Amino acid sequence: MAQNNSFSATVYGVAREAGVSAATVSRFLNGTAKVSDAKREAIENAITKLNYKPNMLAQGLKMGSSRTIGVLTQSLISGYFNEALIGIEDALKGTGYAPLIVSGHWHASEEAERIELLIARRVDGLVILTGNLTDAQILAFSQRLPIVAFGRELAAKNAFGFSFDNYKAACEVTDYLIEQGHRRIAFIAGPEDQEDAKARLAGYQDTLARHKIELDVKLIVPGDFQESGGLLAVNQLLETGQRFTAIFAGNDLTAYGARLALYRRSIRVPDDISIIGFDDLHSSMCTTPPLTTVRQPLFDAGKRIGQVLLKMMNNEKFTFDVPPLSLVLRESVRRIS
Amino acid sequence: MAQNNSFSATVYGVAREAGVSAATVSRFLNGTAKVSDAKREAIENAITKLNYKPNMLAQGLKMGSSRTIGVLTQSLISGYFNEALIGIEDALKGTGYAPLIVSGHWHASEEAERIELLIARRVDGLVILTGNLTDAQILAFSQRLPIVAFGRELAAKNAFGFSFDNYKAACEVTDYLIEQGHRRIAFIAGPEDQEDAKARLAGYQDTLARHKIELDVKLIVPGDFQESGGLLAVNQLLETGQRFTAIFAGNDLTAYGARLALYRRSIRVPDDISIIGFDDLHSSMCTTPPLTTVRQPLFDAGKRIGQVLLKMMNNEKFTFDVPPLSLVLRESVRRIS
Repeated sequence: MAQNNSFSATVYGVAREAGVSAATVSRFLNGTAKVSDAKREAIENAITKLNYKPNMLAQGLKMGSSRTIGVLTQSLISGYFNEALIGIEDALKGTGYAPLIVSGHWHASEEAERIELLIARRVDGLVILTGNLTDAQILAFSQRLPIVAFGRELAAKNAFGFSFDNYKAACEVTDYLIEQGHRRIAFIAGPEDQEDAKARLAGYQDTLARHKIELDVKLIVPGDFQESGGLLAVNQLLETGQRFTAIFAGNDLTAYGARLALYRRSIRVPDDISIIGFDDLHSSMCTTPPLTTVRQPLFDAGKRIGQVLLKMMNNEKFTFDVPPLSLVLRESVRRIS
Repeated sequence: MAQNNSFSATVYGVAREAGVSAATVSRFLNGTAKVSDAKREAIENAITKLNYKPNMLAQGLKMGSSRTIGVLTQSLISGYFNEALIGIEDALKGTGYAPLIVSGHWHASEEAERIELLIARRVDGLVILTGNLTDAQILAFSQRLPIVAFGRELAAKNAFGFSFDNYKAACEVTDYLIEQGHRRIAFIAGPEDQEDAKARLAGYQDTLARHKIELDVKLIVPGDFQESGGLLAVNQLLETGQRFTAIFAGNDLTAYGARLALYRRSIRVPDDISIIGFDDLHSSMCTTPPLTTVRQPLFDAGKRIGQVLLKMMNNEKFTFDVPPLSLVLRESVRRIS
């Protein structure tokens, strides 16, 4: 009986048992093409019956490819990173490649371990979404497989990286608030050690200077890129009696917390105070009022990351334009005279 | 030179090159223990220099384990699923196991393909977060490796599954609104084919019946578990002139859209209309007003899923209590006389 033959079951045995061609079984196993539901079911039943264990690693070595790419993210709960993940998925759709996702939690040593794990599983290429590895570490890994990194600039033989222009977008935000008549603009900062947070603060400061508006350091309050930081920051501004007509929140979560702190004191947005965020999280469409913010095109970036990595794995040339950030005007800012 | 010897490089060669013990290299490669940053760097440099390719699959077969578990989720962008993912990560922390995550997008055929991909990569166990596979398919897969499934009840030799009690929680929500004096309660439904959506609607209907409150079918409007569905549902209720004092939104995203539709017409929450959601997404703490909703303990569930799977992989017995849903009282519901 077939069951007794399980140790030596092959793709051909599975095909015969399922009543389909070996090529169909291969396509199913590799995910290189869709097979009908009926065939899929027949193949799965045959695999179970024969206890067939497809050895993709061996197949991968034979074909020179495992048909997977590794993706190192930093937080599985971050709406920000996850929009990039679905962009990467979208780029791989129909290519037969599947992503394997691991999380590094912004710890360089954990990130390196996770990358080793992916390489040991013979991924054909690697995406690294931000994190705390050094450029040198990433370049070393790129001697073993092609890498596309988001959140740092890299241009090596087997490694490519880019980041968004947070500084420029923060200048645009500040310009916009000034155009709307605001002069006393509070800024809720992000974590001091994060590049994005530093670039946003610098854009705010430099734009005030360009407009010859004196910087009042009491209007710059610390935050943590979380709702709680935004809430505490606005409490601090109000309790120390600062005068301001607008808030530039370091990111959208910060803006949500800031909004709640104002709500608690019956301060209306945008009638009394204007707020602007940064990120354009999905929920920001539906806050009350809907939040004016900066759109980070992470789905688009993820898609381009996937496309570039596929080209690198095929040794094809590519060109790349960094997707631009853009101001999304909704209803949380009003013009004042 | 070492570089010329790359094809036959072994863990011992890497250890000699890095100036550490072979056991340390193994620990690093398997992720079974932390190694110091200095040692990690030395090992990585040695791996790069020798072009060493750790063959975890072979190691896995030898040791009977690849030290990874596969996780099939349905959407990488869902805050709901992702809370379970970080719970699973938390359960695996310090065990030397790492999760490999793939997404099935609620398509049974894609889910089956992704599971084959994970099995081919020799995962030791599998987590399946909801989806559209049949129980029979999951039981068939469980003949090849232990499985914990979320969103369905399973109790087989090598497969365990559980789901939350959405019906009971929906009864509690409706009871609570009735206790607060509401009789005309609009219900914004979820997708008709989703079990959770059906259970919530049934809880609402049965609780009204238990309180002898006549069901007005015009107060039940379709939604899609997204913000847009909530917004359209409230527009429909208002435009057709329905009278109601409270809204039971099928989930939190629906509640966000419903809230915005009311805001657009200057209808105050909870002064004019009360709203209650379902899920307790992270953002629901900071809506204005903060949303009264049902907490789904997904982090906790994910953690228990990971713990149970570890026990199953070790052939250990386990007991399991399904984490209960609970009402989170915030500020979007008011008592009426």
